[in-house]
Amino acid sequence: MGILKKTACIFSLFFISYKGICQINSVKHPNIIVFLVDDMGWMDTSVPFYDSTMPLNNRYHTPNMQRLASEGVKFVNAYAQPVCTPSRSSMMSGMNSARTHITNWTAPNKGEDADEPDGEIAPLNWNKNGLNPDTTAKDMSHATPFPKLLRDAGYYTIQVGKAHWGATGTPAANPHNFGFMVNIAGHAGGNPQSYLSEQRYGNMPRKAQPQAVPDLEQYYNTGTFLTEALTREAIKAIEVPIKRKEFFYLNMCNYAVHTPIMADPRFVQKYYDEGLDSIEAKYASLIEGMDKSLGDIMDYLKQKGIDKNTIIIFMSDNGGLDQHQRGGPGNTHNYPLKSGKGSVYEGGIREPMIVKWAGVVQPNTVNKNPVIIEDFFPSILEMAGVQPHSIIQKMDGQSFVSYLKNTTLKEADRPLIFHYPNKWINISLSDEAKYGINYFTAMRYGNWKLIYRIRNQKFELYHISKDIREENDLVNENPAEVKKLAMLLGKTLKERNAQMPINRATGKPAPFPDEIIK
Amino acid sequence: MGILKKTACIFSLFFISYKGICQINSVKHPNIIVFLVDDMGWMDTSVPFYDSTMPLNNRYHTPNMQRLASEGVKFVNAYAQPVCTPSRSSMMSGMNSARTHITNWTAPNKGEDADEPDGEIAPLNWNKNGLNPDTTAKDMSHATPFPKLLRDAGYYTIQVGKAHWGATGTPAANPHNFGFMVNIAGHAGGNPQSYLSEQRYGNMPRKAQPQAVPDLEQYYNTGTFLTEALTREAIKAIEVPIKRKEFFYLNMCNYAVHTPIMADPRFVQKYYDEGLDSIEAKYASLIEGMDKSLGDIMDYLKQKGIDKNTIIIFMSDNGGLDQHQRGGPGNTHNYPLKSGKGSVYEGGIREPMIVKWAGVVQPNTVNKNPVIIEDFFPSILEMAGVQPHSIIQKMDGQSFVSYLKNTTLKEADRPLIFHYPNKWINISLSDEAKYGINYFTAMRYGNWKLIYRIRNQKFELYHISKDIREENDLVNENPAEVKKLAMLLGKTLKERNAQMPINRATGKPAPFPDEIIK
Repeated sequence: MGILKKTACIFSLFFISYKGICQINSVKHPNIIVFLVDDMGWMDTSVPFYDSTMPLNNRYHTPNMQRLASEGVKFVNAYAQPVCTPSRSSMMSGMNSARTHITNWTAPNKGEDADEPDGEIAPLNWNKNGLNPDTTAKDMSHATPFPKLLRDAGYYTIQVGKAHWGATGTPAANPHNFGFMVNIAGHAGGNPQSYLSEQRYGNMPRKAQPQAVPDLEQYYNTGTFLTEALTREAIKAIEVPIKRKEFFYLNMCNYAVHTPIMADPRFVQKYYDEGLDSIEAKYASLIEGMDKSLGDIMDYLKQKGIDKNTIIIFMSDNGGLDQHQRGGPGNTHNYPLKSGKGSVYEGGIREPMIVKWAGVVQPNTVNKNPVIIEDFFPSILEMAGVQPHSIIQKMDGQSFVSYLKNTTLKEADRPLIFHYPNKWINISLSDEAKYGINYFTAMRYGNWKLIYRIRNQKFELYHISKDIREENDLVNENPAEVKKLAMLLGKTLKERNAQMPINRATGKPAPFPDEIIK
Repeated sequence: MGILKKTACIFSLFFISYKGICQINSVKHPNIIVFLVDDMGWMDTSVPFYDSTMPLNNRYHTPNMQRLASEGVKFVNAYAQPVCTPSRSSMMSGMNSARTHITNWTAPNKGEDADEPDGEIAPLNWNKNGLNPDTTAKDMSHATPFPKLLRDAGYYTIQVGKAHWGATGTPAANPHNFGFMVNIAGHAGGNPQSYLSEQRYGNMPRKAQPQAVPDLEQYYNTGTFLTEALTREAIKAIEVPIKRKEFFYLNMCNYAVHTPIMADPRFVQKYYDEGLDSIEAKYASLIEGMDKSLGDIMDYLKQKGIDKNTIIIFMSDNGGLDQHQRGGPGNTHNYPLKSGKGSVYEGGIREPMIVKWAGVVQPNTVNKNPVIIEDFFPSILEMAGVQPHSIIQKMDGQSFVSYLKNTTLKEADRPLIFHYPNKWINISLSDEAKYGINYFTAMRYGNWKLIYRIRNQKFELYHISKDIREENDLVNENPAEVKKLAMLLGKTLKERNAQMPINRATGKPAPFPDEIIK
């Protein structure tokens, strides 16, 4: 009894309330959410990003993206790299992938090369382990990731879902090393072994592969689809800074809509009923599940009264899959864009991007300025009001915040580079040429796009603003433009210390595009 | 160019420095670290917790525990439950395991019963899924965990290593649900599938079991022993609140020294050289690796200048293993204590506990007041200066902070309950009796200890202060004490709504100890 009373007495001297501990000063910082979808194509939505509504816009149901677009601005010329790790590491570092030397997706195991072997071209010594946020390690591309800067500035930083910045056995495997305080399900794996709780998202005893999704044991055998589990965890995670009266950065990276293409049981029946090919019906259900995830988060922000002070940036990390594992004929899945994931054609690199920022962005607007994934780094820091001081990398990205604030502002032309000197998949040489896959580098500059096929050193030239499907190659009609762009592409690649693959026969690296111009 | 300049201009208006964001008020809160070891016995250290140095104290090398003890206070009558989940869930909830109905370790899969089947006694309907921090779920013991209270009060809360508060498919599997902002390697599993990075801590493709340790992909194939990987992650994790000028709570739960008993290659050779049994040499290396973990954290705190404002509480979750998988004869591994893990004899429940709190605790002192694992809940809150308001559970633990502040204070006698109405392992009935394992309940009260074997309703009585080895059963010599203690034990169990197992033959629950006293 005496003890209890003494305890109570001591307690009363010590107790404090939350508000006494941490005071937010008068400057109000926005919360920021990047909603990064995996492998989602430009047309995989009921929001039209093209000039008119296309058949695929009618196939997919994304009411929450529609809501987001009506409250924000659509960037209709937004770009990423053809595959995921290059895009994701560029976003984290602000560097273009030509500079990071992370030009292909990274395998989950250290030292393992995701590149397919090729008879003609030798293996490239690219940064196959990914992005190293640790300045001491020596075998990877180094960068100070922006979430680290946000965290050090007082932001509550959360990673949910796919990370895929690099391999196991290296710091790249761990989102904490990138500045995230909270990590849920982010690791070295680039796809989910399974979307199903009944399969423990892959973590089945003695069946698990490196792509088994970590951290979701709570949902095993609960019937919770992966997209839903991640969404619930994300909402729980942002509840914490809300309670602590801290502002947050949420990197919301659904594994959807990456393969394996599995039916999201909440949505798939409708697509079967519409008569879609069964793989395509499953794919559409993954899209709609992802859209619900966005909607649930938007609803939660509103319910908590912080929707007005929370920026949402919607993005995908590369184009929609058009190769193997999709249903129906190829070169249709991103129509009117050509090809898809893995390609330097628009189908592989053009992304659905929306930014909502209440009070700053004019609702329901369209912005035509070309932007690229490495622009996220300086843009997010500017939105947060955090300076990129003492970063160790040279940044290629430019902030797009000025376009958010001033819709009439037009960007000066600048080279957007898609450098992919790797072999993604084994296909025939004619399919390589047809689909723009394996050993390509490309550049968008203003209205133009130059494509350089490294294997045979051939150019293609498209007036991308008039010919989004890249059907009319103008390389013979406009040699002056080819020359101008090839010089700029070559110069930019060299400035970024880009790698070129080596020809097995000659032992020499392929020439840069400016070097074969007469 | 114009864009870049505009961007720079906008930046300058927005930038803030860290200190502007979050101000710590003038009240100084201590950082708190609980360093909870798994399965470590009372004698598994070179720090003597007994009256004199014993042979086992000479076997083990724990220089950092010695350092901690020299800077703090040794609690030489500290207790936990005979196995891990009961102890860990009591610590999280402040409830005794008789009240939580979490009286055995929890299997990693929801609904799976870790109890061994028994011919005589029916399965117990205990809370086999563990502790539910979520008040909405219905099939588990509910509690507001103290880390949640700390987090809501502004503490930066970190879980590293073993959690094991409950099963997959329930909120208990996820440390975030307990109030931890950061979780590294804590999940439903209660032991590490492997300590070796070369075996990916168990996450080997197609070989992983539910006990594969999550979140450490960064260390795969780096030669980093599990204990070292967890320690490095813990240090990285506490670097964050130090930078953010926040105070932190670290729940540092090494998987060591739980089975599988694997050699920590940094330390094992010395023990082989000393001629120890090979299993025991490996075990001793696990102990020393754990001790290095403690030392590394202490060094880091000192290096950062926060050692004086950081409380360290060292504890183990149950007694040292004395059964299968250890080397050498049984009933020796915790000598002079009897038996080990799983037992209600002292070898199963008495723990090495040290508290360091600079400026509050007198260095190099010994405290003889009996304390028990559920006392951690109110003690840690009191240390933090955080009120346990609006908690949903009835707390059994009492704060030991007053003993830290006043070394002469003597606790009023109170019942410390070790209720284990489950079947832990399959052993013979005579071994059950000999080792105090399977279907026991026990109570320490002042100098006395009453043991009640539920299976045959027999009592044992020991004067624990004079007979720590529990060799002289006084049940026949002192029936008055037996009666007094049996009445108190029965009353306390009933107050806590404790469960009793059901006899298969009669269909009736075993009588409470007070019910068989004439």
